[in-house]
Amino acid sequence: MLGIDGRTLLMSGLAVCALGLAFGFVIFNQLKAMPVHKTMLDISELIYETCKTYLITQGRFIMILFAFIGAIMVVYYGVFAFAHLPAGERWMRVGMILVFALIGVAGSYGVAWYGIRVNTFANSRTAFASLQGKGHPVYAIPLKAGMSIGMMLISVELMMMLLILVFVPGEFAGPCFVGFAIGESLGASALRIAGGIFTKIADIGSDLMKIVFKIKEDDARNPGVIADCTGDNAGDSVGPSADGFETYGVTGVALISFILLVLTSPEAAEAQKMLLVWLFMIRVVMVVASAASYLVNEAIAKSRYGNLGKFNFEHPLTVLVWLTSIVSILATFGVSAALIPELGGASSAWWKLSVIVSCGTLAGAIIPELIKVFTSVESGHVREVVTASKEGGASLNVLAGLTAGNFSAYWMGIVFVVLMGVAYGVTMMDAGTSEALGAIIRFQTEGGWVDVSPIFAFGLVAFGFLGMGPVTIAVDSYGPVTDNAQSVYELSLIENVPNVKEEIKKDFKFDANFEVAKELLEENDGAGNTFKATAKPVLIGTAVVGATTMIFSIIVLLTGLRPELLTHLSLMHPPFLLGMLAGGSVIFWFTGASTQAVSTGAYRAVEFIKANIKLEGVEKASIEDSKKVVEICTVYAQKGMFNIFLTVFFSTLAFAFLESYFFIGYLVAIALFGLFQALFLANAGGAWDNAKKVVETELKAKGTDLHAACVVGDTVGDPFKDTSSVAMNPVIKFTTLFGLLAVELAEILQGSVDNGATMRVVIAAVLFAISAFFVYRSFYGMRIAALEGESHAKTAAAPAE
Amino acid sequence: MLGIDGRTLLMSGLAVCALGLAFGFVIFNQLKAMPVHKTMLDISELIYETCKTYLITQGRFIMILFAFIGAIMVVYYGVFAFAHLPAGERWMRVGMILVFALIGVAGSYGVAWYGIRVNTFANSRTAFASLQGKGHPVYAIPLKAGMSIGMMLISVELMMMLLILVFVPGEFAGPCFVGFAIGESLGASALRIAGGIFTKIADIGSDLMKIVFKIKEDDARNPGVIADCTGDNAGDSVGPSADGFETYGVTGVALISFILLVLTSPEAAEAQKMLLVWLFMIRVVMVVASAASYLVNEAIAKSRYGNLGKFNFEHPLTVLVWLTSIVSILATFGVSAALIPELGGASSAWWKLSVIVSCGTLAGAIIPELIKVFTSVESGHVREVVTASKEGGASLNVLAGLTAGNFSAYWMGIVFVVLMGVAYGVTMMDAGTSEALGAIIRFQTEGGWVDVSPIFAFGLVAFGFLGMGPVTIAVDSYGPVTDNAQSVYELSLIENVPNVKEEIKKDFKFDANFEVAKELLEENDGAGNTFKATAKPVLIGTAVVGATTMIFSIIVLLTGLRPELLTHLSLMHPPFLLGMLAGGSVIFWFTGASTQAVSTGAYRAVEFIKANIKLEGVEKASIEDSKKVVEICTVYAQKGMFNIFLTVFFSTLAFAFLESYFFIGYLVAIALFGLFQALFLANAGGAWDNAKKVVETELKAKGTDLHAACVVGDTVGDPFKDTSSVAMNPVIKFTTLFGLLAVELAEILQGSVDNGATMRVVIAAVLFAISAFFVYRSFYGMRIAALEGESHAKTAAAPAE
Repeated sequence: MLGIDGRTLLMSGLAVCALGLAFGFVIFNQLKAMPVHKTMLDISELIYETCKTYLITQGRFIMILFAFIGAIMVVYYGVFAFAHLPAGERWMRVGMILVFALIGVAGSYGVAWYGIRVNTFANSRTAFASLQGKGHPVYAIPLKAGMSIGMMLISVELMMMLLILVFVPGEFAGPCFVGFAIGESLGASALRIAGGIFTKIADIGSDLMKIVFKIKEDDARNPGVIADCTGDNAGDSVGPSADGFETYGVTGVALISFILLVLTSPEAAEAQKMLLVWLFMIRVVMVVASAASYLVNEAIAKSRYGNLGKFNFEHPLTVLVWLTSIVSILATFGVSAALIPELGGASSAWWKLSVIVSCGTLAGAIIPELIKVFTSVESGHVREVVTASKEGGASLNVLAGLTAGNFSAYWMGIVFVVLMGVAYGVTMMDAGTSEALGAIIRFQTEGGWVDVSPIFAFGLVAFGFLGMGPVTIAVDSYGPVTDNAQSVYELSLIENVPNVKEEIKKDFKFDANFEVAKELLEENDGAGNTFKATAKPVLIGTAVVGATTMIFSIIVLLTGLRPELLTHLSLMHPPFLLGMLAGGSVIFWFTGASTQAVSTGAYRAVEFIKANIKLEGVEKASIEDSKKVVEICTVYAQKGMFNIFLTVFFSTLAFAFLESYFFIGYLVAIALFGLFQALFLANAGGAWDNAKKVVETELKAKGTDLHAACVVGDTVGDPFKDTSSVAMNPVIKFTTLFGLLAVELAEILQGSVDNGATMRVVIAAVLFAISAFFVYRSFYGMRIAALEGESHAKTAAAPAE
Repeated sequence: MLGIDGRTLLMSGLAVCALGLAFGFVIFNQLKAMPVHKTMLDISELIYETCKTYLITQGRFIMILFAFIGAIMVVYYGVFAFAHLPAGERWMRVGMILVFALIGVAGSYGVAWYGIRVNTFANSRTAFASLQGKGHPVYAIPLKAGMSIGMMLISVELMMMLLILVFVPGEFAGPCFVGFAIGESLGASALRIAGGIFTKIADIGSDLMKIVFKIKEDDARNPGVIADCTGDNAGDSVGPSADGFETYGVTGVALISFILLVLTSPEAAEAQKMLLVWLFMIRVVMVVASAASYLVNEAIAKSRYGNLGKFNFEHPLTVLVWLTSIVSILATFGVSAALIPELGGASSAWWKLSVIVSCGTLAGAIIPELIKVFTSVESGHVREVVTASKEGGASLNVLAGLTAGNFSAYWMGIVFVVLMGVAYGVTMMDAGTSEALGAIIRFQTEGGWVDVSPIFAFGLVAFGFLGMGPVTIAVDSYGPVTDNAQSVYELSLIENVPNVKEEIKKDFKFDANFEVAKELLEENDGAGNTFKATAKPVLIGTAVVGATTMIFSIIVLLTGLRPELLTHLSLMHPPFLLGMLAGGSVIFWFTGASTQAVSTGAYRAVEFIKANIKLEGVEKASIEDSKKVVEICTVYAQKGMFNIFLTVFFSTLAFAFLESYFFIGYLVAIALFGLFQALFLANAGGAWDNAKKVVETELKAKGTDLHAACVVGDTVGDPFKDTSSVAMNPVIKFTTLFGLLAVELAEILQGSVDNGATMRVVIAAVLFAISAFFVYRSFYGMRIAALEGESHAKTAAAPAE
């Protein structure tokens, strides 16, 4: 659908993607070939095996969910949207959209699998490398693994999109993009939800044992530890990989759809093409920028830290993020100046668009710094959590953590207002002249031109958020590897292997230093936690900023931007307001339902572990018991995800059918409420987590009442930060994308039958009743008591006194 | 401003109000004259004394806050709005508005004081009456006290409004109403915030001692108990009285402003008058209905329960609520049929309006029933909290309570959608004909008539919520009296008075039964808790439903409802969206800041009590120590309230100045976010509270680990339900009302100076910086560590290890 010049450029983009994939694979093989002791390798392979079982189960499940989505797609495209085409062509097209949707699902699923495989190479290699007593390899291996995942997933994503853009005929590219994006979102939502539930069941299960039996972290006798390691991958690796893949894709698709939908007038044809090419080339150079920054940073790190024992692991990671961000911004301006020195007659467009994208890119570096104000071990809030616990125990610990979350939501909200405000301000520059962005990015309505550049700008900010995608994903993936590395070390019991020092000396040519190794791994875990916490708001932010652009596409389709219809999007049209109420409701339900699944699962896990743990006379828990805990986690993750996903699915359909403007209010509200809820949950969780860490490492107060109080906060924060919060982003995106189809379907249906309006309401009522049934089940079907018969412990749970 | 017929009717309304006041006073004297033993009387007078000190301190403080508001009023009315009037008349008018604002403050403050006085009569009389061993007086006295407060406050409120309506000249009545409403809101906000912080500091302080020292509830040796009793009044009596007064007033003012603002065309003059009269007469008959229902219910209760020992105290209270609600609905239809059999040519308006009001009235009875699904001792959620705590301790207890709150927010949100949806549906009936409500309640714009009946309908629903106001207030006030009664009993140590049984027999002519008395008081406390929990969402609901109408007034003033300006209220105008983000931020900040004040205060209280409690060799704590705890509570309540209020004040001004549509987005968001946050917090708190109760009364497991876990949840829930949640309603209303002035001031300023638009933004930036300073202080200035020097304990707090 592009001219020959654009095509050439984009083909070179494909070449870059291919190089990106090659980069990923080279690292993959390097990691695999690294030296590792057999005891550690065995553990990491066991973790990989359990992860594989988990992923296969999830894969089957996702296909069931896909059937629901697929059915709606077939009805919408096959029966309505392509009704004007001859049957053969019609069904061929429907088939093609379904194929793209499946490719989207496969993409999310595939990168998740790839990530797990890379991480389970890296975890044991990191653990083994730590024995050398030097900091550098302990830092370099997890980062290398992360970069491999980051480059791989971004390259795959970009390649898919370029292929659609270059080879699919113009008028048909839009639906293919949407199908692809829905598929990605479905995969990411399901993997985020299930992974988030799984990991926190295991985590809480293991953590509470520390208090009950006073055993240390990762004690090999605790049958919950393997599940915890699996969970670190299922939650913290699978989740972000799939989420990153989806986010990267969907923010792109939102902009592409916007461009295809808005710039339709003949005058805009040239600008349309140029913007599309520009958009992709920005992404392409950012991939290059990420790779180059990584290599440069790595060279610096090696020369600075290569021979040191310990160093601050967070430092080179922070440098990497800032370096990439600066290089990306420079690249953005460079590419823009080269590609669009003039756009639609405006010679300032190139730098204005660059500033807007850079707002997002910069935010990708600034937001993590801000998050540290609320969650780092030096933060006033984290200190307050610790102080409050001294006199106030678990009670004031929990309250102080919640307060940290609340304050962070305020300040982050203000940051988003400023960020989007700047982007909006840029679009208002030179207003009324031909230099204004609104003179190019405008929509032709019956009544004249409408300036839509602010909406486009918001989309670009979201796009910029993930500009340095490979690095964002890499530092996020750092955490699960370092966390696992520590566990692998403990579980391998390598220190107890007879003559191990001599063996290592002989086989690997170095002197193993166990004490330093453990310290290095523990500190590295802290760095992993920090970067895991800071990456979350970046992904969350894309949901609300990006949703604006997607929702706008729906608005254009519904109203053609005619003023008399646009007032329906305001308070003057009560359904819009009621829709916002419905959106708020659903976000609160989602938070509750995901927590409930964790809570019930954790209860069962604790019950089982308490009944089966053996502390005397054994070195480690049996594989059988460990697998049983994994099974418990899987079961409740599935059950929870099933209710949650079907509620989301049927609610979306119900609200889309009820009334179109009600539905837009609904979408706006889930983005807004979701943003704040996610920020609040993520940062409260982060504060509790690090408060516990302060007590453990700085105050060395493990086993005290203060520690017990902090473990309570930490476990409360577990589902906050790693279940409910992180799943908001894909759920919001899925709802918005899928809603695009749903609301169009409802509109077409209304127009094509008698009493269409009544029929819509009746269908909506039925669909809402189904969704309400799953809401009901997401609590009453998931209650501990309701599932009493399912007790997994060999000893029956004690009945109420 | 009304015709002679309307005037006569309203004068008779004044007569009803006078009767209502008389009703309140008669009960006041009856309560005072009731028999009571001196030991108990002494305690209740001590509580009253500490309450008085608290109220006087607050009163001074509110006057400082009033200075801020007053200054803005003087500038707005004196310098701008009345600029066209001669100086003399202008300042007389400004003075009058200020007087009405002061009357509003005095009203909120006065009813709060009255409530405390009545409650501190009732608490000792109830405690003493329990000695007779019969249930009826234990139930009847607190309800009587509640009805006295309810009738008094509603009558005062209604009388004030009638006086303005009847005696203030027409075009000037609007500003007087607004001034009065702002005053009420200011008073209610301040008393709600400070009271909420005070009560929970004391409550947590006392509760945690139960765990630390294993002492019982209300142990006289605990110096925190008097503060707890004071707090029950400061929080649970002062707060709801002032809040009820404010809510009743503001929902009325919102509708009156709407009618005065919208129905301005000559064709609508008659409808305007009729609607005003109708509105007030509905209120008047509902007061009568409340009083009548109470008397009937009381007669039934006396005959059914008069001679029984124990009975279910919740039962007659539930009957009262339903009876009043049904009588009120019948009265609504009756009055409407009589007063507006025809309105603006429509013969169906009377029953349509009645249906809409009844939606609200019915909700006042249905919502409490729904709340029980999440918070009553039989509720599945409460049971789940208990079950989860068995294996999961405090961790899963907290998570299960949060889940209850989240699910309740979902279902309550849906209830609001349905409720408002029905009201909207009624306005859509007969659309296009002269029978439609929109044919009467419509606004004349340049472009023609605009149907605004749905907005009016939402206001009527909010109005209906509080239709049976006296009863709603009465059942809400039941709780603090019963809670206090139990404390008074314990603190009086009456059982230890030598020969007390003989003395009572001689002086009061009955045989005292201590055991039954204690059981009766404990059960009655449970009933009080339940009704306290169920009344909250009714008050909260009025905030969002009522805010719609108030926000609408601002919209009319800003846009004149011209379509080209109305699109600025939608997503198409980015500032509107950014304003919504700002609103979400502020609600989260508010939750955090109010919690922080409680947390720090509770820490100090715990520290002091731990250091000073004497368990051996004393019968009760010294008055001096008890007063010291009261002082700690007062100090932190003040500090907290100061930062919070000034943040609210300056944020409102800043956002109003920034951009008018940004501000409307802000108002919409604080109403929406505030609603959900408040529902979530209130019901999570309620679930934890009753989970603890189940463990204490049903499982009889006081002193076990299970109990300790449930106390953690209960204390976390304390500021949830009684601080942050309940203050949302007055804060939202205050912001909206005060914002009405602020945004008009900004608009006038912009129009009256050169570069007005720039100036607005500059002023906004300065004001925002001030608000951000107070946000900063509301955490960093309130940190425990920051206030380390303030330690109130005689022994220094242990420094961090």
